[in-house]
Amino acid sequence: MTIVQAATPAQRLGAEFLGTAFLLATVVGSGIMAERLAGGNVALALLGNTLATGCMLVVLITVLGPISGAHLNPAVTAAFLLRREMAAHEAALFVLAQLAGGIAGVLAAHAMFGEAVLQISQKARSGPSQWFAEWVATFGLIATILLTLRARAGAVPAAVGLYITAAYWFTASTSFANPAVTVARSLSDTFAGIRPVDAPAFILAQLAGALCALYICRALVGTPAAAAAPLKTHAAE
Amino acid sequence: MTIVQAATPAQRLGAEFLGTAFLLATVVGSGIMAERLAGGNVALALLGNTLATGCMLVVLITVLGPISGAHLNPAVTAAFLLRREMAAHEAALFVLAQLAGGIAGVLAAHAMFGEAVLQISQKARSGPSQWFAEWVATFGLIATILLTLRARAGAVPAAVGLYITAAYWFTASTSFANPAVTVARSLSDTFAGIRPVDAPAFILAQLAGALCALYICRALVGTPAAAAAPLKTHAAE
Amino acid sequence: MTIVQAATPAQRLGAEFLGTAFLLATVVGSGIMAERLAGGNVALALLGNTLATGCMLVVLITVLGPISGAHLNPAVTAAFLLRREMAAHEAALFVLAQLAGGIAGVLAAHAMFGEAVLQISQKARSGPSQWFAEWVATFGLIATILLTLRARAGAVPAAVGLYITAAYWFTASTSFANPAVTVARSLSDTFAGIRPVDAPAFILAQLAGALCALYICRALVGTPAAAAAPLKTHAAE
Amino acid sequence: MTIVQAATPAQRLGAEFLGTAFLLATVVGSGIMAERLAGGNVALALLGNTLATGCMLVVLITVLGPISGAHLNPAVTAAFLLRREMAAHEAALFVLAQLAGGIAGVLAAHAMFGEAVLQISQKARSGPSQWFAEWVATFGLIATILLTLRARAGAVPAAVGLYITAAYWFTASTSFANPAVTVARSLSDTFAGIRPVDAPAFILAQLAGALCALYICRALVGTPAAAAAPLKTHAAE
Repeated sequence: MTIVQAATPAQRLGAEFLGTAFLLATVVGSGIMAERLAGGNVALALLGNTLATGCMLVVLITVLGPISGAHLNPAVTAAFLLRREMAAHEAALFVLAQLAGGIAGVLAAHAMFGEAVLQISQKARSGPSQWFAEWVATFGLIATILLTLRARAGAVPAAVGLYITAAYWFTASTSFANPAVTVARSLSDTFAGIRPVDAPAFILAQLAGALCALYICRALVGTPAAAAAPLKTHAAE
Repeated sequence: MTIVQAATPAQRLGAEFLGTAFLLATVVGSGIMAERLAGGNVALALLGNTLATGCMLVVLITVLGPISGAHLNPAVTAAFLLRREMAAHEAALFVLAQLAGGIAGVLAAHAMFGEAVLQISQKARSGPSQWFAEWVATFGLIATILLTLRARAGAVPAAVGLYITAAYWFTASTSFANPAVTVARSLSDTFAGIRPVDAPAFILAQLAGALCALYICRALVGTPAAAAAPLKTHAAE
Repeated sequence: MTIVQAATPAQRLGAEFLGTAFLLATVVGSGIMAERLAGGNVALALLGNTLATGCMLVVLITVLGPISGAHLNPAVTAAFLLRREMAAHEAALFVLAQLAGGIAGVLAAHAMFGEAVLQISQKARSGPSQWFAEWVATFGLIATILLTLRARAGAVPAAVGLYITAAYWFTASTSFANPAVTVARSLSDTFAGIRPVDAPAFILAQLAGALCALYICRALVGTPAAAAAPLKTHAAE
Repeated sequence: MTIVQAATPAQRLGAEFLGTAFLLATVVGSGIMAERLAGGNVALALLGNTLATGCMLVVLITVLGPISGAHLNPAVTAAFLLRREMAAHEAALFVLAQLAGGIAGVLAAHAMFGEAVLQISQKARSGPSQWFAEWVATFGLIATILLTLRARAGAVPAAVGLYITAAYWFTASTSFANPAVTVARSLSDTFAGIRPVDAPAFILAQLAGALCALYICRALVGTPAAAAAPLKTHAAE
């Protein structure tokens, strides 16, 4: 992945907004489509939802990576902040752009499918098993990103798309693994929704998973010298 | 992607004709096959339709890209025309080749499946939600192409195939996103069809989406200097 | 794809035998598995069959390409013979190795699934629509191979896997597109079978499709100079 | 795939443990998810199980390959030991890490899905057809790895993921092809389980398949000089 030019701060925020909007339009839109067509078979609905989400992630990270790093996820932004590869004020703006983009994407999905644009989810997703699943899902996602950046930076788009495709099925929560996605999905009373009351615990579990991934990855690939020198940032891959 | 030699104009038009023919044979043929076998489950039918279309797009753009740029889509040709990377008369011929190829592909699909070769679709696809979905679908497709050309030109075939795979599920219209495809599908009264009377609004929405993508991409990656100098064309990737 | 060393003739034939055996074990084995599990839904059975076949083709061509070119298909061998990139006696031995390997693969699939090892298919696949479908399928396969070799030789394994994945769905015959596969599948009275009496017409349609692809590809990419000089062979990619 | 730095022995064992844990969490977790949602259709359940496993394998081998070689499988470790590319004591430690990781992954999957953490499988998988299927599955897996290392080392993650995706469907046993996976799956009374009493025969068949693959690959690509000089190891790709 080559950087054609340095993006301006506005372009970086625009990329995070647009990317998270398309991500959520895909997650929620394909959930609606899949559930409407699946005739009650939830495995089939999840299959359509998975296929769309995994493929879209590869596209979004490929095209937006050279602009903003294509975080599209506050947990990813937090990881880069903790690795001191990002300034705190830019991280805060990234998270705002991701949240705004995610909500815009959900509203767009509703409009495309002729649903009420504003909704509040009634779908309960709670309990220790679900929280543990979100911890695992986000641990795996952040570890995938950090280790792929080391192993083969150009493979990050494919690795994230493939990881989430798997995680929709092997985690009991279908792998939200993203606080902006969690907030946005609380605004959709469809297949992909989550009750607003259940969102905070999901987000805590996600951030805990991201933190653990940071430390495990440092242990797996670190050396004294490497621990002192920051890795290349995602945006500069 | 290396250019082995410059293609002649006839070879370029031949590539657009043949590619669009295979694209439509795939869209319509796999729709017939999937609907016949799916036992009434539309999600399963769309899954077979999606898999075939996404895979074929990767192949077609890989093999025809070095010859004609593998537009296979008047909205793509219009975008390159508006970026002044293509002469108007060649763009017009491209669109004619795409339309002729698309129709030939539909007729071939009908012949393969023992259907009446000439058909007119009865399938209603209309209303503001559908039009908005086509706007979103084409906006995303053109943005994917333009931004992938900047980020990693060799990834265009995969990016388009993955994007359309996702868009079949996350847009309420199953993402026609292509005026030649829209015209050709109006001639098939099968799974993939659209009533001729519904085609013009789809095409308008598609062209509006393409236009918006042009401007957004310029904003996301442009600089004063870059805006003045044309990007490399798709055909020269 | 790098050639580590030149393969001996015996190694080349061994690669064609082993590769065609794994291809047929996959086609027939996954057909049996998918039909047994699909509960009568043929679309679902074809999905499992498609997934296995497409993935296996990518693997086989990746690993055997540097040894023998990974033709695994008399129609491919015939195309390289007609392009004078192969000697007639080696082409004949390739076809024999492919036929023997294909039959061995079918027998292995039967043994794995506890079926009678020797079978004769009762499945009728005949008529002009089916023959036209085989012509289209093989035309597309040979064009995919020849044009990908020109455009991006390292992409041949993926292009063939993706093309066949699409072709299982968009051609009415589910795309045999391979005379050795056709002969071998006549020896399996399972999902993937074809009556021996129907095989010759399939094979004729396949060879006609391959021949047409040769000429179309020459027209699409040829120049007077290029037409005189043979392209690089598949084995030397 | 570039090696950023040499990993320490502890990092290599940690990578094998973590990778095998994620592999088993995926195999068992997606099996539970898929069976719960599939409404009794086993083909659909296997589809979800396959998709998750294949995608996760590509991710794990991409990110852990530069650390430990990403064997994640005692049969792979045995093959490298027999090729004298690994010391016996490190191979023994690798197998222990794989077994421990696999069991940890199964327990994590149970916890995520609210199942009893400790289970013993009741699922019978036995008989000559199943054993032959495991022999074929592991033969193909080891041959895929060894030949891809020669043909295009960077393609190993994709080749293994695609091979296993196919093998879930074309082998009658759904391709365990891994002694650590076999042991771990005996501790799960869910979709992916196997009775402990049936595990030893599976493991013997797997090791026999790996051994045959070693010899066939030497015959397919070997020369007197090449047979004397060891190939590059997986970890050094």
